[in-house]
Amino acid sequence: MQALKDRILKEGVNLGDGILKVDSFVNHQVDPALMNEAGLEFARLFEDVGATKILTAEISGIAPAVYTGLHMGLPVVYARKRKPITMPDQVLLTLAPSHTKGRTVELIVSPEFLAGGERVLIIDDFLASGATIMGLVRLAESAGAIVVGIGTLIEKSFESGREILEVLGVPILSLAAVKSMEGDEILFV
Amino acid sequence: MQALKDRILKEGVNLGDGILKVDSFVNHQVDPALMNEAGLEFARLFEDVGATKILTAEISGIAPAVYTGLHMGLPVVYARKRKPITMPDQVLLTLAPSHTKGRTVELIVSPEFLAGGERVLIIDDFLASGATIMGLVRLAESAGAIVVGIGTLIEKSFESGREILEVLGVPILSLAAVKSMEGDEILFV
Repeated sequence: MQALKDRILKEGVNLGDGILKVDSFVNHQVDPALMNEAGLEFARLFEDVGATKILTAEISGIAPAVYTGLHMGLPVVYARKRKPITMPDQVLLTLAPSHTKGRTVELIVSPEFLAGGERVLIIDDFLASGATIMGLVRLAESAGAIVVGIGTLIEKSFESGREILEVLGVPILSLAAVKSMEGDEILFV
Repeated sequence: MQALKDRILKEGVNLGDGILKVDSFVNHQVDPALMNEAGLEFARLFEDVGATKILTAEISGIAPAVYTGLHMGLPVVYARKRKPITMPDQVLLTLAPSHTKGRTVELIVSPEFLAGGERVLIIDDFLASGATIMGLVRLAESAGAIVVGIGTLIEKSFESGREILEVLGVPILSLAAVKSMEGDEILFV
């Protein structure tokens, strides 16, 4: 998506260690028009996968996921990282190592909202190591649901996430794939 | 907003201790069409306050805030509860007691995205004790910004949040105000 690539070139900051800061339009401040355009693009790209639900992880996946859900007419479930008191005792839970957080995080979904037979489209902000998305895949599969596609705003193609996820045999689409970051230079695939 | 009230009556669950579970359309699973309609309604209600930015708190405020931002053409900033590594060392930080979490949470905003002179519209899912929203007010004021309005999806008018916030002298609008919850009966103001 050219508008996203342009914005990354304009405002993205390479913090080193493979970390791309996009806090001004994705991760802390959100540009609703840009994220809505991303949601429209995901809806177009995944219109034929027969998804019945969108799954994402709090926190940064929520904005792109809810716009995608709006344009696809689908409910969105965001996996929680802490179990809120409103959630039943029995939950679906998996652990996922977080590269940027330097620790393992829990991903928790209530079985109320992820049922057997559902066709799940996973939407998230980044595809990097693939650990978070693979955690969402495990949650979906443990519910007896089927993952039918994976969409991310930004892929770091210099990390191994795509290889890990390709075994699933579903479309994996990113709107901007970063090939390399050297100093101030961010190059797309 | 009648559609929101109808949905609360249909799917909201009184968990006791003043806690209203709306996990099926707001807090864990999101209904994008309903939240978009709420965003449209906030945009209509606050069209004359001259807002330049929308401020919310992660996590459950994000969905209503980003749809409001879309319809008002404004950027959305969500206060983080943990400082991510992409944030600068100097941040705006305040503490807010969380009734539902039973502990005090940090609310953190980068000064990159909340500047002096900005006119801030606060959007959140619940107005209950008012503690989280008052935390957002403190963050805005510490940045030298002005709060021009407060909008929440659901107000628990049996708690004292509105009284605490009224000293600000700005419009405080909720789309569904719950007067009481007794057993399965949820009554609106």
